[in-house]
Parts: sequence; structure tokens; C-alpha cells
Amino acid sequence: MKILIVGGVAGGATTAARLRRMDEEAEIIIFEKGGYISYANCGLPYYIGGTIQERNSLILQTPTTFGNRFNVDVRVNTEVVSIDREHKQVCCLNRTTGKTYWESYDKLVLAPGTTAVKPAIPGIDGPGIFTLRDIPDTDAIFEYLTHFPSGARAVIVGAGFIGLEMAENLHRRGLSVTLVEKADHLMSSVDWEIAAEVQDEIRKNGVEFFVNEGVVCFEPDAEGNKVHLESGRVLEADFVLVSVGVKPLVTLAEQAGLEMGALGGIAVNDFMQTSDPDIYAVGDAVETRNPLTGRPQLCFLAGPANKQARFCANNIVEGNKYAYKGSIATAIARVFDLCVGRTGLSESQLERNGIPYLTSVTHTGDHAAYYPGSHPVTIKLLFAPEGGRLFGAAVVGREGVDKRLDVIAEAIAHGGSVYDLTDFDHAYAPPFSAPKDPVSNAGYVAENILTGKVQPIRWFELKAMLETGEPSDFLLIDVRSALENRAGTIPGAVNYPLDELREYAEDLDPETPIVVFCAIGLRGYIACRILMQMGFSQVRNLAGGIKTYAVCNR
Amino acid sequence: MKILIVGGVAGGATTAARLRRMDEEAEIIIFEKGGYISYANCGLPYYIGGTIQERNSLILQTPTTFGNRFNVDVRVNTEVVSIDREHKQVCCLNRTTGKTYWESYDKLVLAPGTTAVKPAIPGIDGPGIFTLRDIPDTDAIFEYLTHFPSGARAVIVGAGFIGLEMAENLHRRGLSVTLVEKADHLMSSVDWEIAAEVQDEIRKNGVEFFVNEGVVCFEPDAEGNKVHLESGRVLEADFVLVSVGVKPLVTLAEQAGLEMGALGGIAVNDFMQTSDPDIYAVGDAVETRNPLTGRPQLCFLAGPANKQARFCANNIVEGNKYAYKGSIATAIARVFDLCVGRTGLSESQLERNGIPYLTSVTHTGDHAAYYPGSHPVTIKLLFAPEGGRLFGAAVVGREGVDKRLDVIAEAIAHGGSVYDLTDFDHAYAPPFSAPKDPVSNAGYVAENILTGKVQPIRWFELKAMLETGEPSDFLLIDVRSALENRAGTIPGAVNYPLDELREYAEDLDPETPIVVFCAIGLRGYIACRILMQMGFSQVRNLAGGIKTYAVCNR
Repeated sequence: MKILIVGGVAGGATTAARLRRMDEEAEIIIFEKGGYISYANCGLPYYIGGTIQERNSLILQTPTTFGNRFNVDVRVNTEVVSIDREHKQVCCLNRTTGKTYWESYDKLVLAPGTTAVKPAIPGIDGPGIFTLRDIPDTDAIFEYLTHFPSGARAVIVGAGFIGLEMAENLHRRGLSVTLVEKADHLMSSVDWEIAAEVQDEIRKNGVEFFVNEGVVCFEPDAEGNKVHLESGRVLEADFVLVSVGVKPLVTLAEQAGLEMGALGGIAVNDFMQTSDPDIYAVGDAVETRNPLTGRPQLCFLAGPANKQARFCANNIVEGNKYAYKGSIATAIARVFDLCVGRTGLSESQLERNGIPYLTSVTHTGDHAAYYPGSHPVTIKLLFAPEGGRLFGAAVVGREGVDKRLDVIAEAIAHGGSVYDLTDFDHAYAPPFSAPKDPVSNAGYVAENILTGKVQPIRWFELKAMLETGEPSDFLLIDVRSALENRAGTIPGAVNYPLDELREYAEDLDPETPIVVFCAIGLRGYIACRILMQMGFSQVRNLAGGIKTYAVCNR
Repeated sequence: MKILIVGGVAGGATTAARLRRMDEEAEIIIFEKGGYISYANCGLPYYIGGTIQERNSLILQTPTTFGNRFNVDVRVNTEVVSIDREHKQVCCLNRTTGKTYWESYDKLVLAPGTTAVKPAIPGIDGPGIFTLRDIPDTDAIFEYLTHFPSGARAVIVGAGFIGLEMAENLHRRGLSVTLVEKADHLMSSVDWEIAAEVQDEIRKNGVEFFVNEGVVCFEPDAEGNKVHLESGRVLEADFVLVSVGVKPLVTLAEQAGLEMGALGGIAVNDFMQTSDPDIYAVGDAVETRNPLTGRPQLCFLAGPANKQARFCANNIVEGNKYAYKGSIATAIARVFDLCVGRTGLSESQLERNGIPYLTSVTHTGDHAAYYPGSHPVTIKLLFAPEGGRLFGAAVVGREGVDKRLDVIAEAIAHGGSVYDLTDFDHAYAPPFSAPKDPVSNAGYVAENILTGKVQPIRWFELKAMLETGEPSDFLLIDVRSALENRAGTIPGAVNYPLDELREYAEDLDPETPIVVFCAIGLRGYIACRILMQMGFSQVRNLAGGIKTYAVCNR
């Protein structure tokens, strides 16, 4: 069996390695258009920022080491320019010699990956403007930045995961960084209650940002570029990074007449097989199915690419027996002292898909409060109003964010509900967690909402009530202590500390619409339980407490 | 409704708080024999060691704060000495006044907890010999230790989780620590491949230990105690901690004629109800069912106690609707720079229950190797030979151990298999993980074993082969590089580096029994795949590589 693989980074290299372990006899050739295979794509920002000090450590395998180990013929600087499906051969261009030749195949694997999106903004191809996708990009940025002193001005267009990682790393290099984001908040794929904490962190670290803002044009000048924004603002930039996303490299597949997906990726079935049974495809360029919505999905993540590669290799060698289930797109980033991530469906994805949902927001110490160094982990859950099936989550905090995301991702992946989180049998000792883990606690709060033990009110609902003054007779109660209240509260709130609430409540009309809040939502919940059982018919607890309310309104 | 709760620490206090949230009208009284409720049991060693500096931070709630918040009558220093089930009342002894009185109940909740086991060793009640279970124990130890300078000699009898936490904390205080353990290794509830790494860490930190060793007697002398061991060894100790386990406090329940479990805990059904429908019980003293074996189980962990309390309160208020599923006993400890834990069933539990199983051992970087600070996480999986249902796991490493335990625990709890681990959709960015997380990697290796892609050999099997010389013609191949081989290998091994293995193998008889090994098992696996496909019929890969072999033989 002769197998050709187009693309030698995550998906391609992993497919080759697994193929070899499955079939010692197969002839395997990797064609890689660039000069590098199997490099540390996700590490590139950290090399630019100096956390990763050796460029060499980005190169996980060289064509020689990989070729020797797996008995694979690795041809770098070789582009596959066309596929002749009828004769099962591909046309290869050796980019060093400029010569082309044909190579035949029994099975062909496409792993072309993506390219950075470069919007058609005037001036975008000028000097000093970069995208970051591969090693040559990294080298170019690294070299360019060596010409600038500390304090040089960087503008990053697009504040997604990579944009924020680059903001942190450029800041670490001493650059003065400004982010420009088209959406209404940074990290727009993460729900606002969670992304708001990141935006706060960015601000605290002296990184400037503009949201709801786009670039009209780049105007080169003596020092770099003037970046003209839609609002009329003009930013001076010594260095510009455009990180507005990536798109699948599908030209080769398209020209070969392979079926494309609705979102523009290479269509594959569950066995990672394209519309041509002898051609498989894996990685960022393929279009799979979101396991929660059943709808088409592009997923630009390393983990899923690796998994697809294993499935693909297994299916090529053993026949189509291994069905890939799709990815719930768990993703994470560190942003200064915070870690932030998401898994499953976000609120906007649920809205777009017309799926009814409930939400909860909790702040829980990442480990026992009495053990030094505990910090809150904020978890937003999205779940079904009936039965509590988990749809998605977003998490932010200083420590232990990855752990909580991973556990919730594991629960979502097996079709779990909020009750799987309440039952969660976690590893507890004081340095690691508390008897109630943040995940269990999120589950408990969701359960209380599901079972009607508490009626939450979200930050924007309360904000609207306060702005409109409707309903006019509603009472906003701060149930924190007098001391906490004096340090700052929500305007219009009365302060009935929880431990005295029972007495205060005796003088209130049980028909009064009441919103209670505390610091994070726990005392507010207890207050709700007291009031509801005392006969108050309209009591709601501010989700995430004043902490979430304040950060979302900042 | 009038509800009495016996015991005010984890299970009792949580039951009371949940009861109040469920029922504002109920009369709730907590009786606590000691002077403290709701204290940080698991933090006690860290207060003694100085990591937790304020004694006050161990006291999570006082009777007054808890009583005010939850409108609960908290009676400390009050022991419930008998239960009159017929008249539904308990007899209470006020330990301050010495007076007794009766209190009636509609529902009674028993949360008596455990007491430290004190074996009948001569001299054990002498001065300088302590157990650690509660605040008074802690105060006594703390006060006692202030009289000793740095370098004082501590002997800890029993090297389970608490024993090791105390070893670390006493070491941090400057004591010279010796552990004495009856089992054949430290932390005997954790499988040896994992516990061996802990034992190594203990050794590196200068803590002395003896295994397969018991105490014959304690002989008081001028400086403390002479600890006479079964081997004839005598240890001089300024301070002795006996931490050989705990046992449920069941006298009250027993004298009331409540049904006891096979293991000596208070028998409860899934609703946390004892054999008397008006009496519930929660926490360390109850006997529940292991969800994996279906057999009776005692579980001395804070997380399960909290969960049981919530179930118990719900069932009391809403009728028996909430079934507790039992605990898979996920547990963790930090021991110097290592973190170690276990979940589900251990190898010895599987043996005892006659459940057939397979194992895998993997060492995988806790995050991408190219990002600074990556350390291996060692995962041992136990799974079903058919279908790969997960039974249990043990994990050790410097970072990210709690995360992997929690994810595997979540998979085990929902009846997952090793394939749930291979599918695991985890949060990856370089500081947090790698495209193949240690959990996925453990799953992949287990899958390879399950599907016959590799035949593992365990450290003790290879050891036996080397000791007996059987089979006589077997070939042991070190597939690491010549450089690694020269730095130390397993005696008797030939060195055929992986990248040259194909050539070496051509000269070998395919019938030769072969064991291959590398550093951690990955290259050994690739070597096995090459050899198996070249027609070698008896090839096995050393599980966990030379790393596990060496540490298990140390």
C-alpha cells in the first residue's frame, strides 16, 4: 500500500506516525509545502515573548529524525499542486528546483491546514504588518522586533485567543500594546460574564483596547503605520499583527472536485473520508460535525487534529471502523495572570441554533480558603431547562481553570447533565480543591435553578430594571454585611445583612418584587430561600453576585 | 418538623445548612460533643507545619456565626448519649455542666464521624504519643512541639495519606522524621508503580522510612520514647504520631439497635436512611456501597460526606427521592514536590474482588515539552480486558495530577471506558497540556493493549524472567540511543536503538521471545509494532519503560 500525505504539521505527521505503527510495510510519503514538519504551532507566541528561549525547541521533529524513526519519506519544500483522481496520482512541485513530477497513491491524505485571514484592508500588505501562523512568520516577526526598543508601539487587530496571547507576549517584550476588536468584547467566542474578567485583566496590565472597532486602512509612514480606525481614531504602530482568524486551505481539494462543506472546509464523513473513498482528510481544513448540534463545524484546534489523524490512519489500515465523534471545541488561553477557556456551546451558539437554555454563574475558591493562595474560579454553565443536559461552559480564574474545564468537557462529551457535576467525585486535599469543588458547586447552583429553589436574575436584566425603573416598586437588597456595603454597592440597594434578614423581612409586603445580591451569589441564594419560604412570591438572586455585575458593567 | 443532628463537623453542619435552605420553618438542633463545629479537618497537618499560619483560619464557622446564619440551635460540648427510638427522643449530656436532658425529634441525623485507631501496643498511651483527628489533637501536638528544637526526632507510625502529609509538615518544621509502615510500601492504598515514585521522593527529602515493619512497644524514657520495632530496631523519638487509620464512631447507633454494616459502619440505604426510617446518617461513620463492586464500603473523605449531607437533607424534606450513588473514593495528597492520588479500584481491590483487569502505565509531560517547566505525569490505569471499562487509576507527578485524576474520576463515575479517555476533548494551550494530554495518552496505550497492538510486560514479570533466566533464550532490547544506554540500563540488555532496529532485526530469529524497553514506553511501543509486523511472534514492551522498572526496584 502506498499512502501519500499532503501536509506535515499536526494532522499529517500524526497520521504518518500512526500509519507506520499500524502497517510496517506501507510506503508512506509526506509532502510539506514549507520547510518544517511537526513544529510547535501553539508555542510560537511564547517564543516571540521570550518564555520559550530556544528557537530549536519549536521544531519537534526534523524531516530526517521523523523519516528515520517512522521510515517515512518526508519531502519538505514540496507542494502538491494537483490531484489526478482518475489515475490516483498527484502532481508535486519541488519548490527548491522548480521541477514538477507525478507520484501515484493507493490512499491519499489531505492535511493542508489553514492560512491566516488577511482582510482586504488598504495597506495591509505594507511593511511592518504581519500575520502569525508558522515558523517563517515567527522568524520574520522576531527579526523585525529586534529593531525596536522597549516601548515600541504594537497594534493587534483581532482579540481572539491568539491575539490575546500575542498581546501578553509583546507586552512581556516591553512593547506598548493596543488591541482592536470588531466584536463587542475581547475574546468574543467566550461568553461575556467570563470574558469581562479577562478584559479587566488586560486593562490592569496596561494594555489598551478598543472594541466595536475596525480598521479602515493602514497608512505607512516613516515609523511604521498609521492605523486608521472606523471611529476616526488613528493609532501609530511600529508593529502590526493581524490576527482576525484563519481559513482552511482547500484549493487543492476543490480543484480535484472533492465535495466541500457548508462552511467551506473539506467535507469528510465520520471516518475522515472525503467524497472520494481513496482520499481522506484531517486537521484544520476539514469540516466535521458538532456533536451537540449535529451541524457542520470548522475546528482549528490541535487536539482534535491529532485525534482525527489517529482515526484516519486506523480507518485506512483496518477499513472504515473508527467513527470520529466530532469536537466540542474545548479551548484555553493564559492571559497575564488569568486563565480562561470554554467548552461545548457558548450562549451565542445556543441562540443561533435556537436551543433553549438556562445559565448559572458561580465564583468558588480553586482550593480551600484556609489554605494559602486560594483564588476564585468563575464558572458559567449553559444547560437544558428540562433535565439539565450540559451544553457548554466557560471558566476563568488564576489557578485550576484548565482542570475545571477538562472535567466539564468530559461530562459534556458523554452527554452528562448538571447532576453529573453535583455527583462529581473529585480529588480533594487543601492544596487542590475544597470538599465542594468549583465544578460541584456550579452543579449545585444549576440544580437549584433547575428545580426552582432559586430564581436567578442576570446582570443585564437587573441593569435594565434599574435603568427603566420597572417594575417601579421593586426592592433591591444587598444582603452583605454593613462593612461590605459601605465599601461600595449597587446604587438604589438597601442593606439588609443576611443574618438579620428574617427580622427585616417581617415588615415587607410579600408581593413586592425583590432582587437580592451578595458578593458572589451564595448569601443571596440563602436569602432567597429564606424569603421564598416566608411567602415572598417574586424573589430573584443576582447571578454571580456583585462581582459579576460589576465586571460586566465595567 | 424538629430535626436533631448528632455531630457538627462536615456531614452534620452541611446537613443542617441544606435543611435550612430547604425548610425555613423546621426546628434544627446540632449536638456536637467537642467544642468546635465545621472546622478544617484536612488542614490540620498544614497548620502544624506552618503553611497555615492562623489557627483561626481552621475554624470555618463558630456555633454563633453558623447559628445566626442558618437559624440553627448549635449545642457544642454536648454529647448525645442514647437514643430512645420508641419515644423519638435522645438523651443529651451537657459536658460543661455534667447535666443530662432529653430532646425529642421528628427526624434524627447521625453524623458522628470517626475516631483515630489506637492499636493495643504497650506504652501507646504514654506521653509524647499522639493521634491527629481534631482541633484539640492539633492544639496538643502544636503545643508539645514548641518545646522541641529543630532536629528533634519524630516517628510516624502508619504511612497513609495523613501520615505522609504529617511527614512533610513535620519535616518543614525542622524535625527529623522516620516513618514506620506495616504494609510493603508507603501509601499502601496506592498501587506500587505510583507509590514507588512517592517513596523515592520521601527518600530524596531525607525522610527515613521502614516498610514491612510494626511497633512492638513504646518505652518512655527521659527524652520521649524508645520505639521498639518488630525487626528489633529501636527508634528514639521526641514525638510520636500514630496514624494507622480511623474507625467509625458507632456506639450510639449500635446501642440504639440500628443495623450495622458488614464493615462496622452504620448501615444506610441509598437515601442515607438507617434501619429506623426516622433516623438518617451521613459522613465517615456510615457504610455505603462501592458503585463499582456493589459491595459495602467505608469512605473517610470530606467530599462524599458533603454530598451525602445534601442527599440526606433533600430526602428528609422532600421524601426519599434522591439516591446517593456511592463514592469511587477519589483521593489525593501532596508529598513534598509530588502530588499523588487514586480513584476507583486499586489493583489489590480488584484482586480481592476477583475482577479480571488489565493495566497500563504511562509517563507524559503535564504540558508541552517545549514550554518551560514540563514534568512527567505518571498514570496507571486499571481496566476491563473486554471492552475496556475503566475500573480505577492512580496518578503521580509534580503538576497537573489533580486535573488528570479528576477527569479520569469523572469518566469512571459515568461508567466510561478507555475509549472515553482517547476521545477526551481537553483544554490545550502550551502552559496547560499538549495536543495529546496525559489522559488521552493513557487511553491510547490502554487501547493499544486492549486491541492487541502491543503486549505489555510489567516490571515484576521482567524481574522474574531476569532472576530465573526463564525463558533461557529471551532477548532484552534497550531501544534507546547509545548515549542513554551508556548512562545506565537493565543488566543483560542489548542496545538496538529504535532508529536502527529494522536492520538489527533482520538478523534475529522471529521465534525469539523479546522484551523491549525504552525510557518511558513510547519508543518501546514503536519497536514492538516494527517487530510484530516483521513477524516476531513473542514481543513485549516494558510497561512504563525503564523509569517505572527502576523506581519499582529501588
